[in-house]
Amino acid sequence: MKFLFRLYNYHFSKDKNFAKRLRSILGFTPYNIALFKLAFYHKSASTEKLYAIRSNERLEYLGDAVLGTIVAEYLFKKYPNKNEGFLTKMRSKIVKRQSLNKIADKMGLDVFLNQYNNTKLSRSMLGNALEALVGAVYLECGYYKTKNYVINKILRSYLDIHELETFDDNYKSQLLEHCQKNGQTVTYKMLAKYKFEKRDRFKVAVLIDDKKIATADDFNKKSAEQTASEKAMQTLGILTETDS
Amino acid sequence: MKFLFRLYNYHFSKDKNFAKRLRSILGFTPYNIALFKLAFYHKSASTEKLYAIRSNERLEYLGDAVLGTIVAEYLFKKYPNKNEGFLTKMRSKIVKRQSLNKIADKMGLDVFLNQYNNTKLSRSMLGNALEALVGAVYLECGYYKTKNYVINKILRSYLDIHELETFDDNYKSQLLEHCQKNGQTVTYKMLAKYKFEKRDRFKVAVLIDDKKIATADDFNKKSAEQTASEKAMQTLGILTETDS
Repeated sequence: MKFLFRLYNYHFSKDKNFAKRLRSILGFTPYNIALFKLAFYHKSASTEKLYAIRSNERLEYLGDAVLGTIVAEYLFKKYPNKNEGFLTKMRSKIVKRQSLNKIADKMGLDVFLNQYNNTKLSRSMLGNALEALVGAVYLECGYYKTKNYVINKILRSYLDIHELETFDDNYKSQLLEHCQKNGQTVTYKMLAKYKFEKRDRFKVAVLIDDKKIATADDFNKKSAEQTASEKAMQTLGILTETDS
Repeated sequence: MKFLFRLYNYHFSKDKNFAKRLRSILGFTPYNIALFKLAFYHKSASTEKLYAIRSNERLEYLGDAVLGTIVAEYLFKKYPNKNEGFLTKMRSKIVKRQSLNKIADKMGLDVFLNQYNNTKLSRSMLGNALEALVGAVYLECGYYKTKNYVINKILRSYLDIHELETFDDNYKSQLLEHCQKNGQTVTYKMLAKYKFEKRDRFKVAVLIDDKKIATADDFNKKSAEQTASEKAMQTLGILTETDS
């Protein structure tokens, strides 16, 4: 029965163009077209009263959870000897906002979003739509088919897991390496140590050839230096592609 | 075949007592006894090098994700007209640390934990073991059976979802109500407004009959008042059971 609906959706319905384009990113024609359309409605496209049910926010909430579990299990099985800290870090590299925005962009979800929204697209609308799409796939196909879809059509198609694994988010060492290549010196300077909610907090600056490039605050001096280094790399335009 | 193993585990194995007690909380006898034992090993029970694979941390990581998705879907379907904000808030009320610790306590997981660990039990070890148990059930039974288990044996058995729904985490109004009953007056006083990382931040105090009971900082004055009220209620010992 569902098969007939899918056939109809693909060939005859008024949404056949949408269905065809969806098929190219899903690998199947959806049965419940309205559900998949909903995945691309940003809340600004609806009235305030109705946006709960006429925007992709609920689907995004569901898809976010489902995607998180699929990625968690994928990593759990891929790395049987790694500890929880490694797995959690890898997972957040994959499901973090920037990463999902980038995947959604590669998948071409902007085309769908442009069709259903009048507002200007923001980067985060891309990642949200990807989560909402996973939510829609889950409702239509259940957990295991969604898992196959996510692993084969998303993770394996758009992510280099080994690159992520070795991807260095130690910004301090990256900045150092970059500056050494250019014969520059990097130094860190503690600008202030103060009490915040009864805890010590540090403000540090990173200087390149004695010129202050960025500052950051943290409860931990080393973390403040990391954040300052990351900011400096953004300022200098040398953040690596994986994190952009 | 699995059936025979289960029969053996329950009646003849050296772990038959463990299997019997597990059956009482799971509703089935596990096939992979070692996996379920692992769910109760705190990392302190292993050497540092091996704790990644000989403690419940990896299972907890997996179970946390699976539980989060099951609860997310349960709420998504239970409240078809509620917006994402409501669903997210309800979900966090259910899966937050304190809530899981309390459920695990009611389930009697402390007995299992005491058996496999030499350290003194902390409250958070209970919630962690519950997540690890869900992880083990998932690995043994797959998504749908785990979903049934979580909904029927955990959510419906140990949580009052309607109480959670109406549970008031507006500490300001709760504190006010409490004090009015006792003929006391509640006032809030802004102690400081200062810049923190370029944003305004507020320090407020809550006073009962002009006596300062608690203070809190936040970027938002109202949130600071909420937090101060919560702290005041803790100090006065009047926080409601659901949140303890």
